[in-house]
Amino acid sequence: MSYSDTPLEKIDNILQQAQVAFLSYKNFSGKKKGAFLRAVADEIEALDRQLIETAMRETNLPEARIVTERARTTGHCRMFAEVVEEGSWVEARIDTAIPDRMPVPKPDIRKMLVPIGPVVVFGAANFPLAYSTAGGDTAAALAAGCPVIVKAHPAHPETSTLVAGAIFKAMQKTGMPQGTFQHVYGSSFAVGQELVKHPLTKAVGFTGSLAGGKALFDIACRRPEPIPVFAEMSSINPVILLPETLKRDAEVIATRMAGSITLGVGQFCTNPGLMIALEGEGLDQFIQHLAKAIEETLPGAMLHAGIAENYHSKLKRALEQKGVKVEAASRSEGSAIEGRPLVASVPADEFLKNPTLAEEVFGPFSLIVRCSSWDVFNRTINNLHGQLTATIQGDAAEIKKHPSLLNMLMEKAGRLIINGVPTGVEVCPAMMHGGPYPATTDSRFTAVGRDAMKRFARPVAFQNFPDELLPDELKEGNPLNIWRMRNNQWGKH
Amino acid sequence: MSYSDTPLEKIDNILQQAQVAFLSYKNFSGKKKGAFLRAVADEIEALDRQLIETAMRETNLPEARIVTERARTTGHCRMFAEVVEEGSWVEARIDTAIPDRMPVPKPDIRKMLVPIGPVVVFGAANFPLAYSTAGGDTAAALAAGCPVIVKAHPAHPETSTLVAGAIFKAMQKTGMPQGTFQHVYGSSFAVGQELVKHPLTKAVGFTGSLAGGKALFDIACRRPEPIPVFAEMSSINPVILLPETLKRDAEVIATRMAGSITLGVGQFCTNPGLMIALEGEGLDQFIQHLAKAIEETLPGAMLHAGIAENYHSKLKRALEQKGVKVEAASRSEGSAIEGRPLVASVPADEFLKNPTLAEEVFGPFSLIVRCSSWDVFNRTINNLHGQLTATIQGDAAEIKKHPSLLNMLMEKAGRLIINGVPTGVEVCPAMMHGGPYPATTDSRFTAVGRDAMKRFARPVAFQNFPDELLPDELKEGNPLNIWRMRNNQWGKH
Repeated sequence: MSYSDTPLEKIDNILQQAQVAFLSYKNFSGKKKGAFLRAVADEIEALDRQLIETAMRETNLPEARIVTERARTTGHCRMFAEVVEEGSWVEARIDTAIPDRMPVPKPDIRKMLVPIGPVVVFGAANFPLAYSTAGGDTAAALAAGCPVIVKAHPAHPETSTLVAGAIFKAMQKTGMPQGTFQHVYGSSFAVGQELVKHPLTKAVGFTGSLAGGKALFDIACRRPEPIPVFAEMSSINPVILLPETLKRDAEVIATRMAGSITLGVGQFCTNPGLMIALEGEGLDQFIQHLAKAIEETLPGAMLHAGIAENYHSKLKRALEQKGVKVEAASRSEGSAIEGRPLVASVPADEFLKNPTLAEEVFGPFSLIVRCSSWDVFNRTINNLHGQLTATIQGDAAEIKKHPSLLNMLMEKAGRLIINGVPTGVEVCPAMMHGGPYPATTDSRFTAVGRDAMKRFARPVAFQNFPDELLPDELKEGNPLNIWRMRNNQWGKH
Repeated sequence: MSYSDTPLEKIDNILQQAQVAFLSYKNFSGKKKGAFLRAVADEIEALDRQLIETAMRETNLPEARIVTERARTTGHCRMFAEVVEEGSWVEARIDTAIPDRMPVPKPDIRKMLVPIGPVVVFGAANFPLAYSTAGGDTAAALAAGCPVIVKAHPAHPETSTLVAGAIFKAMQKTGMPQGTFQHVYGSSFAVGQELVKHPLTKAVGFTGSLAGGKALFDIACRRPEPIPVFAEMSSINPVILLPETLKRDAEVIATRMAGSITLGVGQFCTNPGLMIALEGEGLDQFIQHLAKAIEETLPGAMLHAGIAENYHSKLKRALEQKGVKVEAASRSEGSAIEGRPLVASVPADEFLKNPTLAEEVFGPFSLIVRCSSWDVFNRTINNLHGQLTATIQGDAAEIKKHPSLLNMLMEKAGRLIINGVPTGVEVCPAMMHGGPYPATTDSRFTAVGRDAMKRFARPVAFQNFPDELLPDELKEGNPLNIWRMRNNQWGKH
């Protein structure tokens, strides 16, 4: 099947339709929006084997992974359904009037979050389901009350079309207005550009490369009306290896890290691409165990030829840099479409001088930075760019010996992990998937978990409104029984 | 006294100091930050007459207004103190581990808001106290845990210096690190530009003109690491006059509007610069009453010569546009430094064709758009730019006859008011002071009220942390007794 780019002259019509849909969709109750999101999950499940097989064929991902990813996708649709059905996400604030206040009366003011408007979502290459057509950005925007236009990722257009079909069915079954969800194709940059430039577009979700995300961000900033772009782009997810813990648990930590580095052929935005350690016995033992695990891990087929080529060329370039030494590689070289697990090391002094070594190598690769002193170790951490995650392998007693470590890492990353791995992003309220630039374009928002909805909402205050004209969320009697802050106090009042 | 611009070569040192302060200030308890903010309020009050008289001299504002504004400033310092002392503002989320979950164990993840880093604040011309040196942006950023660098507004440098002195005293008395607050001067654009460009600056607060705010926004977007700019810029605060209500209450509404248009010589960002009404008997009566009130209102001295000149030239330009007719003006013309109250009208057809008429005329001026039909009326509303506020003069029964009216206005403004005036921005949790572009650069955040802190904070997740290494806000025993979302449930648990 072939998918030709959506003609640019159709884009205006697509956004006009989204806007018409918006003006009614935004006012639907949380229950109605929830029913729609649940129907999306049901229809995706109804695609059954066809979806699994299509996604496997288009992405080279194994069945187990696609099945897990489908569960994650339907899971977040139902999670967002639950959030909007419950309703407290709107952060209702109520301040009642004080008519006899001096010198001026205090008016009644009530505030809640409302949807921002039509949202454009760019499907991700590495998550054909969970961060594509009905992915986290789409589900969060629909839950917030925004119509969504998805640009299918050109690497898996058939999978995207199947999921879009499921969403269209769900729209029909639950009475959503035409234009609530729309699906376009674009292998050229032009389609995406036009979508982001259109005056009716109010926000953008993107998962992909730094170059791609930054280009969309720049377009959005230069519009007559600038709009927010939530781009998740580039992270090497540093792992700090503390020497005493390393010495004691070298094998356990090596096994843990090897698993995380090679998981899914290293094709995760949270892949640990950098490890920072002090030279010494602990590090030597760790590398020995890590090398064994890496050597034994077979290369795997990558998502598509472009990603494999990119891995091979970026890896080659990294290994050519001054001071870089291969510590271990999979016994098998692998084919042109495969990614070969590989770990290298470099002295910290070289790493600090060479910005190329801080660039993401998307695939099963990690670089160990060897630090000759605590001073160099601290400088290495302080020089890191913004990251999605930062991990420490170290027990509490040893971490406490370095009181500035957590303080420094908190400035660098959106999620800190102790004695775990950065891969495996849990969908839960406490998740923060985002981080300082260039990990994402806006460190104040998460792309995973219920708070992801906040990207697509803005507060509106209602002053001196008769009760009957207020949205249900703000009515005096609290008919939706949601949590509200009333005169500075939290409660279901 | 003369205030020369801070030399550009000092700016790096200023930001370095702010960053050093940040790394300890951010970890101070809410109680300690609260004590600092309360001390700021106390020290401002201790300046007593010196501050009142200096501000009056520098701004031409009357004593009653300066006294009110001082109360507002000390009020928001104490309000933010209360918020951080109580502590729940960090939006703590806790998801406890499920070690036996299949197929993979669920880790313990906890999340809270942490401060974003050093913030640059530009003092406002029209609020020498409440939106300047210890203004809403400064107090919100300090409360969030961010060091602040204030650039004094060149129109009231002495007032700014006095308030800065009060903040320095408060820092000393409550043991805040040097660099927590810093004060610079800059009548040229260069100082502000360098501050916004500096890599250690993490966010910007600005209140002023569209040109000024947009220029800072553009600089911030083009940095190697883009940062958020919260600029409150331009709003004409449309007022919708519904015909039946107008006919019945013409005099009451005219008195209300005249008061709001001329309040503080029209020098408020929420000044109602536009009124939209259907032609007819109600409008004629309204204009008659309004004219009387406007004619009787005397011109007042404006903030400084530049603002007065700007008012006169912008007003002149507005009155020269096709179809614009003066409906009423103050009997007295006023001097060169004064702003003369004036109301004009224009047919909607001309208004729709002429973008000049939608530009803000900062001063005691308002333009009535005369609509010949409901269709023209709706088109006029739909064509509005983003606004801080939108007001309806109309009773519930009449508003309900126009079901799309509130729906349309919600897309245009951050705060909707019924039968009230947009001027007078209450400092309370439900306040939304912000709106779609060009009212502000980010419609998702308020500049007034406790939620203003959220502009300067970002979430960080802590995964698999030993309890002793968690911030107090996230510790298992909830030692701060704050509201938290624990396993999806709100409570003090």
